[in-house]
Amino acid sequence: MTDENELKSERTRLRRRHDRGAYDRESVYAILDATPLCHVGYMLEGAPAVTPTFQWRMGDRAYWHGSSASQALRASEAMPVCLTVTLFDGLVLARSAFHHSANYRSAMIYGTAVKVTENAEKKEALKAFVEGLYPGRWEELRPITEQEVKATTVLSMPINEASAKVRTGPPGDDEPDYALPIWAGVLPIGTAIGDPIPDPRNRPDVSMPESLKAYRLDKQDRN
Amino acid sequence: MTDENELKSERTRLRRRHDRGAYDRESVYAILDATPLCHVGYMLEGAPAVTPTFQWRMGDRAYWHGSSASQALRASEAMPVCLTVTLFDGLVLARSAFHHSANYRSAMIYGTAVKVTENAEKKEALKAFVEGLYPGRWEELRPITEQEVKATTVLSMPINEASAKVRTGPPGDDEPDYALPIWAGVLPIGTAIGDPIPDPRNRPDVSMPESLKAYRLDKQDRN
Repeated sequence: MTDENELKSERTRLRRRHDRGAYDRESVYAILDATPLCHVGYMLEGAPAVTPTFQWRMGDRAYWHGSSASQALRASEAMPVCLTVTLFDGLVLARSAFHHSANYRSAMIYGTAVKVTENAEKKEALKAFVEGLYPGRWEELRPITEQEVKATTVLSMPINEASAKVRTGPPGDDEPDYALPIWAGVLPIGTAIGDPIPDPRNRPDVSMPESLKAYRLDKQDRN
Repeated sequence: MTDENELKSERTRLRRRHDRGAYDRESVYAILDATPLCHVGYMLEGAPAVTPTFQWRMGDRAYWHGSSASQALRASEAMPVCLTVTLFDGLVLARSAFHHSANYRSAMIYGTAVKVTENAEKKEALKAFVEGLYPGRWEELRPITEQEVKATTVLSMPINEASAKVRTGPPGDDEPDYALPIWAGVLPIGTAIGDPIPDPRNRPDVSMPESLKAYRLDKQDRN
């Protein structure tokens, strides 16, 4: 298949050569859109480092950001990185230790981190990030200043060399083990979103945005 | 301070030189014990790669495992790695885009991955992993076979060069912005554990272990 929606490359094929792999854009995008949290791997002083941060997607690129003073971002710029997003969906209890597992969805993107250098483009990217998390919020906020834009580094990478890995469903035990009197099954794990906690310093006349009262982290769950 | 409980090293000090950092063992252990999910960074074909997997702690070492055929484990053995555990605790909404943030707890451990080579030691480590997740379960399972132990690679690393980073609490806005009529606060995020889903192939005479009915992922919440 030579579809432009195919993300398979020699490297990702090598890296995800086992079962559970998917290389289509929809699978990868669904995972990126499900949570902002990601882990970015980069080289720091000759050794790999993994930093948690938030990512967001604009079309076929993934973005992340931080303080311009961030060592992690400085070390990532123009360098090979790996951005991984994982949703932990369940614990899988089998009849043997060996077949215990986890249900999860994970996307890995490999590539070179590119710094967004134009302030206008950086501002647009930051707006997309805020609007992606909290639709409508950007216009309600105190406007971002040029100094704040300058103090922020935004990195991005194309989503070309990427793969998704998903496990769902019950344990897969060795056939004879199904006869054993051992409880097996799945303990579902999910993300819980609690009631918003207003800042004690909120003005008495401000009310909580309706959109936060039934907040959904997964963008694809919001419609 | 030159306490043996201090984990500070030149590298972690460099890496976590900003606020929010902690370098004591208790802070790092509390995060490792709160969830099995971690992200391991390693070098693969000359570029960093980040793979989600489960970790567990035995004393002052962190362990992770997988199939002996795993490319990630083969590439990590005897090489520098970074193991990061992150708990995403909340979205922090400020009055300016710039001060939006996240509440989280994160631990990073740097070091060299060491393969557990002795089968007896490997089996003990796997038992500790299963028992750490599901106390009492190891003895209830179909015993692990020598072949299964051989088919599993267990890696470990000392928790010496490590740090924790934690953010809690309300947003920190610029002082003049507190006067603005903009809602600010925290949207708490947590891990939800659903009701166990029995394997449809469970024998009719097996019942769900009591310990799974009110399961706690965080080991420090179990007492």
